[in-house]
Amino acid sequence: MTPSSLNQLIEALRVLPGVGPKSATRMAYHLLQRDQGGAVNLAHALEYAIATLRHCKHCNTFTEAEVCDICADAQRDHSKLCVVEMPTDLMMVEQTLAFHGLYFVLMGRLSPLDGIGPKDIALERLLQRASDGEVEEVVLATNFTVEGEATAHYLSEMLRARGLSVSRIARGLPVGGELEHVDPSTLAQAMVERRSL
Amino acid sequence: MTPSSLNQLIEALRVLPGVGPKSATRMAYHLLQRDQGGAVNLAHALEYAIATLRHCKHCNTFTEAEVCDICADAQRDHSKLCVVEMPTDLMMVEQTLAFHGLYFVLMGRLSPLDGIGPKDIALERLLQRASDGEVEEVVLATNFTVEGEATAHYLSEMLRARGLSVSRIARGLPVGGELEHVDPSTLAQAMVERRSL
Repeated sequence: MTPSSLNQLIEALRVLPGVGPKSATRMAYHLLQRDQGGAVNLAHALEYAIATLRHCKHCNTFTEAEVCDICADAQRDHSKLCVVEMPTDLMMVEQTLAFHGLYFVLMGRLSPLDGIGPKDIALERLLQRASDGEVEEVVLATNFTVEGEATAHYLSEMLRARGLSVSRIARGLPVGGELEHVDPSTLAQAMVERRSL
Repeated sequence: MTPSSLNQLIEALRVLPGVGPKSATRMAYHLLQRDQGGAVNLAHALEYAIATLRHCKHCNTFTEAEVCDICADAQRDHSKLCVVEMPTDLMMVEQTLAFHGLYFVLMGRLSPLDGIGPKDIALERLLQRASDGEVEEVVLATNFTVEGEATAHYLSEMLRARGLSVSRIARGLPVGGELEHVDPSTLAQAMVERRSL
């Protein structure tokens, strides 16, 4: 009873993460009824992005050139390599202005439950990149989730086996954080990882 | 620092209802990294749907032909017209097999807070459709939400002023429903709208 082009659109929208049949139907009706211009624009943006974006040869982030702006910047400290899961994480670290080295973006994390193993993220390329002779320290800045922690553990074993110095960003209370309002496991970790002054 | 074609894609994804900057970013990375085929397919489905779908001349639902299958079916009872908000609602009513008349799809509901007034939904076309001389009863099957109720109220005033008989689908306990588990306002309504046996 539903026209086939509408059904095809609803099915096609389900490739979006977190979108099931109900939201896909709602999205399709919204686009067709209220925002056809937005829908056409979305179609063009998808095709344009697929056509122009590729991975930076050095750090694996998305870029339109062969090498991204950060990797092309001769001012950066080439001896430090910060490993993050996604380009958004890279941008968060950049915003802190606390790191002046280069990055490597895994484009994912190890997640056996979702079927994402070592071959599905850019581990091999990271190993090559970190073994270029210039990198001295690899800073692991994957998330502190179960998957991010597992990824960091796996990476640190691999990288240390190649004689690289490996570090992990710190866990602890947030700046301005009060003990009363922090969750017990973060507080426990802050205690275990206390620094001598 | 984000490539412009990636930024454009993230912006374009925000036309989807319920998608803010964070989900749009997540969706863009997912499509680019894990499902480029799905992204291309989505682009094509959007363009194809926009190009082929239009509104049924009679009932206003989406169709690829001039008149949809239900409106084209001579077996249906032309004296009854069921008004629903969206095509999904039409399908829900169809599944019940309890209604054999025709439909009219508003493609929305009155919602002043979202800026959707009488001119933004197909009220004028409904008035014309209901005044064809064949329709005797208009069954209002908009949702029992605040907006759906307001729409039903507005429609019933308009349609009764034209001498049409107007009804509203019943409120009450669900089939198999237990008094203990139903919310108080539904139970109150079931009491107010009790039927004599």
